Parts: sequence; C-alpha cells; structure tokens
Amino acid sequence: VPTTESMDSLATKPFEEAFNSGLVLPRTLDPNFEDAIRHVLSNPGSLVRPRLVFQMATTYGLEAAHSQDLAVALEYFHTASLLFDDLPCMDNAFERRGAPCTHLAFGEDGAILTALALINRAYALTWRAVSGAPRAKQREALEFIEKCLGVEGVLNGQSLDLHYLDLPHSRETTERIARGKTVSLIRLTLVLPAMLGSALARELQLIERISLFWGLAYQTMDDLKDVLQSSGQSGKTPARDALLSRPNIAAVMGVRAAIQRLTRFIDLGDRVLRSLLAWKPELDFLDNLRGELHLELARVMRNSNALVERDRL
Amino acid sequence: VPTTESMDSLATKPFEEAFNSGLVLPRTLDPNFEDAIRHVLSNPGSLVRPRLVFQMATTYGLEAAHSQDLAVALEYFHTASLLFDDLPCMDNAFERRGAPCTHLAFGEDGAILTALALINRAYALTWRAVSGAPRAKQREALEFIEKCLGVEGVLNGQSLDLHYLDLPHSRETTERIARGKTVSLIRLTLVLPAMLGSALARELQLIERISLFWGLAYQTMDDLKDVLQSSGQSGKTPARDALLSRPNIAAVMGVRAAIQRLTRFIDLGDRVLRSLLAWKPELDFLDNLRGELHLELARVMRNSNALVERDRL
Repeated sequence: VPTTESMDSLATKPFEEAFNSGLVLPRTLDPNFEDAIRHVLSNPGSLVRPRLVFQMATTYGLEAAHSQDLAVALEYFHTASLLFDDLPCMDNAFERRGAPCTHLAFGEDGAILTALALINRAYALTWRAVSGAPRAKQREALEFIEKCLGVEGVLNGQSLDLHYLDLPHSRETTERIARGKTVSLIRLTLVLPAMLGSALARELQLIERISLFWGLAYQTMDDLKDVLQSSGQSGKTPARDALLSRPNIAAVMGVRAAIQRLTRFIDLGDRVLRSLLAWKPELDFLDNLRGELHLELARVMRNSNALVERDRL
Repeated sequence: VPTTESMDSLATKPFEEAFNSGLVLPRTLDPNFEDAIRHVLSNPGSLVRPRLVFQMATTYGLEAAHSQDLAVALEYFHTASLLFDDLPCMDNAFERRGAPCTHLAFGEDGAILTALALINRAYALTWRAVSGAPRAKQREALEFIEKCLGVEGVLNGQSLDLHYLDLPHSRETTERIARGKTVSLIRLTLVLPAMLGSALARELQLIERISLFWGLAYQTMDDLKDVLQSSGQSGKTPARDALLSRPNIAAVMGVRAAIQRLTRFIDLGDRVLRSLLAWKPELDFLDNLRGELHLELARVMRNSNALVERDRL
C-alpha cells in the first residue's frame, strides 16, 4: 500500500515532467543561458498550483492537453515572478526551492533572461490552451490574465510591497498588497481554468470569492508566522518583514487581532466552499486546501499560545 | 510649406499618442511605479518601428485599429528589451532616448516592473490585433512572435552578447549574435504585420530576406561606428564594445573587411527590395530605409577614409 507521501509524489510526477520539458531549448543556445534555464526547470517546487489548475480545468471539461498547457503556463508565470522577486533590488533572497537562487548561481542577467524565457513560453502555452475556446471566451480569459499579471495585479502588488515604507502602515494597505500579490495568483490558479472550461457565471463568482478569502488567509498566515517565529526565538532573529520594511498585518494589528481576522477569512472561505461543493461535488479536491488552512491555523494558534505562556513565566 | 522635419513630426504624432496612452494606469497604482511608467511612456524615442509596422500592416490590408495595436505592442516589447539591456547587470547604461535610464531615476525594481508591465500589455495588444485573423494565421503569427522574442531569438542573442568573452571571437559568432538581437526585432517589425495581413508566401520570403540583410547591415554599421568613432578621437575614448567585451565585427575582421561586408549586405538588400517592389509597388516606403542605409554607408566610408588620411600624415 503506497503511503500518502509516495502517492503524492506519484501524482506530482507528470507535472514535474511537464514543467521540465515545457520549454524546449534549441541547440544553438548560449551555454550560460542554458545552464541557468536548466537550473530553474530542474527545481520545480511543490507543484501544488499546476496540479490545482489541471484539476479545475479538467473538472470543467477542458481537454487534458489544454489543461496541462495551462497548468505549465501558469506555473511558468509564477516561477518567473519568483526569479524577479529574489533579485537583490527586490527581496535579495539566497535560496529558492531548496537550491541557490538563480541570480547567485548564474548572475542577475541569467536570472532575468531565464524569467523572460519562461514568460515568453507561458504566453505561447496559454494561447495554445485558449485556442480551442470560442472567441468571446478567449477574449474574457486573456483580459483576465492581463489584469491579474499586470499593473492592476501582481506588478502593482509587488511595487507597493517594495515601497511600503512610503505608505500608511495600516490594515488597508497590507490587504491591498495581499490582493495584488497573493490573491491575483490564486485567482489565476482557480478562476482562469474554470472560466476557460464550462463554469457558469454563478460558479465563477463563488470561486472568485474563495480565491479572495484564501488569498487573504494565506497572506495573514505568512505574516503571523513571520512575527511568531522571530518572537519564538526570543527576539534574537528579527522578523524578516520588519527587517526589510515589508508589510505585515500581524505587526500592524497585533497578533491577537490578526488571528481573529485569519479565522474570519477561513470561516468565510469554508462557507463559500460549502455552497460551491453542494452545487459541484466534483470539486471536492478543494477540500484538501481547506483542510490545510485549518491545520496551519491550529499551528499558528499553538505557537501564539506558547508565546503568551512563555511571556507569563 | 511644411519642412521635412515638421511633416515628419506630424506623421509621428499619432504614434506618440498611441505609445503614451496604450497602457492605461489604474488609480490604485503605487505612486513610485506610476512615476517610472510615465517616465518611459513620455520618452517614446524615434518611433520608426511602430510607423513601419503600421505601414506594413495597412498595406497588407489589416484594419487600422488592429494595425495600430500591433504597432504599439511591438514598440512596447522593444522598449521593455531596452529597459532590461540598460540595467547594471547588462549594459549598465546611463541615458536612453535623451533621458536618464529608468533604473537610475526609479531604481532597478522600478525599471524591471515597468518593463514587465509593457510586456504584459504588449501581449494583450498583440492578442487583440491577431483576434480577427483566421485560426491558422493566428497560430502562425503567435509562434513567430514566440520564436523572435524567446530562446531562439532576442533572449539568446542578448545572452550570447553578454557572454561574448567565453565564445570564439569570430565573424560567425558576431553574426549569430546579430541574428539573435537585431534581426529578430526587424523580422517582428517587417514580417509579422505582412504575415497577419494578406501577404503571400513568396512575399513573406522576400521580406524575411530583406530583414536578414538589413539587420546584419545595421549591426555591422553600429560596430563600425563604435570602432571609427573611438579611433577618430585619437584613441582617447576606447571603443565601448571593447570596453564592455562585447562582440564587434569590425574589431574581429578589421575596418576594411567589415565595410566590404556591409556593402555586400546593403547590395543584397537592394536586390531583394527591387524584386519585392516590382511585385508590390505600395511598399515603396521601404525605399526610405534603403536610402538611409546608403547615406549611413557613405558616412562610415568618409570617416574611415579620414582615418586612413590622418594615419598617413
């Protein structure tokens, strides 16, 4: 009997291969460039997103080949955004997906050109995935992608994130940034494949709301972990967000209020998901995500309680 | 009577406006990001490319709105490539289109996010321009774009350019790089709009060859200017290409052989253009480009002769 983990790696295998082989490298490629691209393609990360894209797309009747193209395309967009985020002029990161950051191993130029190669390929794969749909649906999908990835979505979120010092340090600001960065990418993962498939307007609306609540929940969770982890280490490691002057809702509202808000986002997500699953039971794979959010919430609450205990002693 | 210059600026005006207004900025945009984008949109450069795209597209029967979308899209791709090229990790440039480089005025993050905003918008505009065409033509055009912009085109050219030190310093290498960087963008400018319009396979073939010869001619011209200009200043200013260890065909072959090669490219281009114009006289606006190449050739030859004279004294 395969364990959960081995079953999981079984389910991941085809996505790993698709991620690795989705960008065909010509023989005339500059060797430096080739090394940088191969470094990125051979470290695909958890592949949770492309699996979700594929499940959403096929559940809504998109054919398997198109579903896979879309899954790889969206993961390439996501990976490209990480390559840019990690650059010294942005987050100045050192490690990504268990390997040294691409710009450290192959230069900033190598990281940038690799990100652009992924983006160029992602658009081509997206077009292929969209090509079978009726024109009105094509237009809707492509406008949706433009919004999520462009100046109304991820790019604005990233810019606000980097210039947080100049902005009011409020809940509104942190949530505006989370909508730009985190929610936009979750919308692409969950809403876009449903939109390209046969999802009805009402279903899309529910999936939109789930993406919003889960996106805000994930961001709040990350912020809480950042604050709790550093406090847990007796303040010796300053919170990374504070170090980088980055938005953190737990720093703005306090841990207790942030946990309350997180609980509320998870609750709201649960409620919308119940409506969606009552209507479309085939989407029950979304229940795993809901379950993980609850597990993480429990962990965060435990850490926060431990902290309160410790401060009492 | 308007002078040539004022007529020219008259013809440029609509493209300037289209370039400036083609990327709509939402009110919620991060102010830093907005400033960086406006800086780029208000310095459009000569706009030679979008005018050519528009002329090619309308000559081949593409409707005006689609032709303009395509013109702006390709100029956005081009501008984004310049924003990346100018970064410290690539050419480390200071000025672009008569203004300080975007990364100097708004940070490297501002330049990168602006370039990505242009790329995101360029794909959306391209899609709009392509949307009216039959599916087979859409696919052909989108695959052509992927090739020109991706790992087989501009990106590989740029990577080879940056790693020239590791490559054999030969005519073959410099021309491979010129094909990647310069020829790819000229192909997008001349071939793509004709392809999307009503151009026949035979016409596309001729336009492909003109793009190749002109691309190689322009790159050779640039290389010659780089070498001649520095020598003209008595060697006090080292050639920029040599300074940056960048490929330069005149440095590899010598000035005399490079001029011979340049003359040959221009000759070949002339010959193919004659065939094309005999078949499609409406493309006579291409004759201006041919004329400019000849003027530049004469200038380069004058400078080279002056250098020989000076060295003789």
